[in-house]
Amino acid sequence: MTQSGYFTGFTCVKCGTFASPDRDLLLCPKCDGLLDAQYDYALLARKLDRAQLSRRANDVWRWQELLPVLDPSRIVTLGEGGSPLLQCNQIGETLGLKNLWVKSDATASPTGSLKDRSITICATKALEFGYKVLSCDSTGNKASSTAAYAARAGLKSVVFCPYETPLPKVAQAIFFGARLIRVKGHYSEINAMYRKLIHSGRVKWYDCGTDNPFRYEGKKTYAYEIAQAFNWSVPDWILQPAAGGMSIVKTWKGFQEMKKMGWIDRLPKMVAVQATECAPIVAAWEKGLNNVPGIGKGPTIASAIAVSNPGPLGDWTLQSIVASGGAAVGVSDDEILTATKTLAREGLFVEPSGAVTISALPHLLKSGRLDPRERVVCILTGSGFKDFERILEMVTIPEQGIQGYEEMLAAAESIA
Amino acid sequence: MTQSGYFTGFTCVKCGTFASPDRDLLLCPKCDGLLDAQYDYALLARKLDRAQLSRRANDVWRWQELLPVLDPSRIVTLGEGGSPLLQCNQIGETLGLKNLWVKSDATASPTGSLKDRSITICATKALEFGYKVLSCDSTGNKASSTAAYAARAGLKSVVFCPYETPLPKVAQAIFFGARLIRVKGHYSEINAMYRKLIHSGRVKWYDCGTDNPFRYEGKKTYAYEIAQAFNWSVPDWILQPAAGGMSIVKTWKGFQEMKKMGWIDRLPKMVAVQATECAPIVAAWEKGLNNVPGIGKGPTIASAIAVSNPGPLGDWTLQSIVASGGAAVGVSDDEILTATKTLAREGLFVEPSGAVTISALPHLLKSGRLDPRERVVCILTGSGFKDFERILEMVTIPEQGIQGYEEMLAAAESIA
Repeated sequence: MTQSGYFTGFTCVKCGTFASPDRDLLLCPKCDGLLDAQYDYALLARKLDRAQLSRRANDVWRWQELLPVLDPSRIVTLGEGGSPLLQCNQIGETLGLKNLWVKSDATASPTGSLKDRSITICATKALEFGYKVLSCDSTGNKASSTAAYAARAGLKSVVFCPYETPLPKVAQAIFFGARLIRVKGHYSEINAMYRKLIHSGRVKWYDCGTDNPFRYEGKKTYAYEIAQAFNWSVPDWILQPAAGGMSIVKTWKGFQEMKKMGWIDRLPKMVAVQATECAPIVAAWEKGLNNVPGIGKGPTIASAIAVSNPGPLGDWTLQSIVASGGAAVGVSDDEILTATKTLAREGLFVEPSGAVTISALPHLLKSGRLDPRERVVCILTGSGFKDFERILEMVTIPEQGIQGYEEMLAAAESIA
Repeated sequence: MTQSGYFTGFTCVKCGTFASPDRDLLLCPKCDGLLDAQYDYALLARKLDRAQLSRRANDVWRWQELLPVLDPSRIVTLGEGGSPLLQCNQIGETLGLKNLWVKSDATASPTGSLKDRSITICATKALEFGYKVLSCDSTGNKASSTAAYAARAGLKSVVFCPYETPLPKVAQAIFFGARLIRVKGHYSEINAMYRKLIHSGRVKWYDCGTDNPFRYEGKKTYAYEIAQAFNWSVPDWILQPAAGGMSIVKTWKGFQEMKKMGWIDRLPKMVAVQATECAPIVAAWEKGLNNVPGIGKGPTIASAIAVSNPGPLGDWTLQSIVASGGAAVGVSDDEILTATKTLAREGLFVEPSGAVTISALPHLLKSGRLDPRERVVCILTGSGFKDFERILEMVTIPEQGIQGYEEMLAAAESIA
């Protein structure tokens, strides 16, 4: 099988420059703007049978004609994507919502987070382009994902993480064989330095970081999976945690693509959720700005999405939200912890950063934007195991142990 | 939709007694033997279209007509099952195998382990039967799964675990809202006491433990998923970790069912893998016995499968292995740790207990039982996060952190 003819190249979001599909690019070669992959949608609409795609394995590559890959024989996969879409009636009732769903990457991703959806593309492109090393900067989840897919592809990996990154994320990356460089400072500073390093040409690594335009496309699969699971009927709202907001930009793009191809007949409203302590996209949206200025960063428990200066990606996210008629919502650390516990009481084990979308629901209801009868999908992004210290702070393990049948019976009858 | 007419009841494996499908049973009401669910396979063969089933959501309930449920409107699901089947060429090459696959429940289960496949059935039956509390004894994974599905069903849960159970497993169970009772002693002793408690009638809990015959059936889905993923062509070998061996018994049953229905035309050879330190099934198989005597239990890092006396379930497992022309293989703790690392180097994050099947491959090759060209599927059962202390023992986190661009460049160039 070949994708030739579907993926047609990139255009720069800023200056409109076109680049051919075979080029190994990060940013726009002319202006350093972000690149957006282009496809021949007329051809796709003619050739693709959405029902037939649904019979393929339940992963990101089910939608491979819509991904920027030229050589499908080199796909590097761990079975990422295809996460469950679950109706949550208990949480819905508590909040007064009649039609609440979660899409849980948190509990169904190979390395335990949404990053697998996009890093699978990077590893595949790295083989296409002939690289030997994958690299990224990361608040942790992207690092373990990069390490896993490098291993799967038979490549090496180098990852740069803030010194305070939760232990499970860095330990997992190292266990996959990554070389970990711990960096002091805020993530946004580390991100700026790392991008300077990559663009300096001093290293020959394949960058799986913020600038990789192939990687972005993996996030579109959220849209395709949601539409398919609802039998090509589109929900009213989709809420996503936002660091820079790549997931939102690309989920929105996925829905627009499906509309172009005639697979769906309407579009959802997109919501970006950030921790109030570090919420530049929310601040810009609330002020009605057209771009997202960087802000000072306070400490937040939602470390995976604490990006104080998302740069041009933030602007693109803001535009997607506005175009969809959606919103940006800030939630407090207390609200995030409550959401984490709320999800657990419906059987879902999610790290605080990955649970923020649930915290945003009361805000949307209170503001009157969200009608309680509307169909809402909250994306859950990272496993509770990924930030396990935070989970441990919320549980009490009994010290005492029992011994023998009489003590077991007594313990049982004291509960029953 | 109703399953009426497909699930026809239970027969006792020991005395053959029949019990109707609506009965709330654990063991045989006549002789306390294990019960095996029965179906009308002629009817199933006529009514079921295997291609149509493949278009349903990718979880255990895709195969609901083959599960012992009378009221599908009450299904309690977290999207369990449907785990990826991945070809592992790197590991295969190292071992000299040309056609090696893993089926990774370890990295795709809602609570991080295979237990979700069977506990989803328990929670569903608990609602059918009107219980308010789910309970189990467990080396840890079953406990967190029971807690999660109880939460999802709006029920309470009580779990009994050995005092030394890995922290992530018990913390997760508590976070889901379980009441945890820590019990001193070996798991097989705890299991005997717990079963006495359940059968005493002193508690009104729905038992999700060893004796629950509904739960067992969830494991059949391994067989259906593997056959479907291979386009209804059956692999030569299937290797599974074995505590009592329920997964092996029921995977074997699943393949037999598909043969009866005309979906497949041959059967695989089944292999049970245990840690040599606690390997009663292996010992019995090597001696050519017809049943599995209990043995003394040594310490092993594979805590999730350390069952020294599997009882009648062990006998059933042994019979399934023998009937399939398979084998039982013991592997050392060193071999298990090596397998855990080997899997990580292919991007798979698996707890030691869940990685044992990989350790068994060299033994099967060496003995000449396994032909290097045969198609082999190893089941991976629990996430690396589930026994995270063991993973941490195998990684070195660098103490040092760098600061500023010059240090980042120096660190990068020292690696590149």
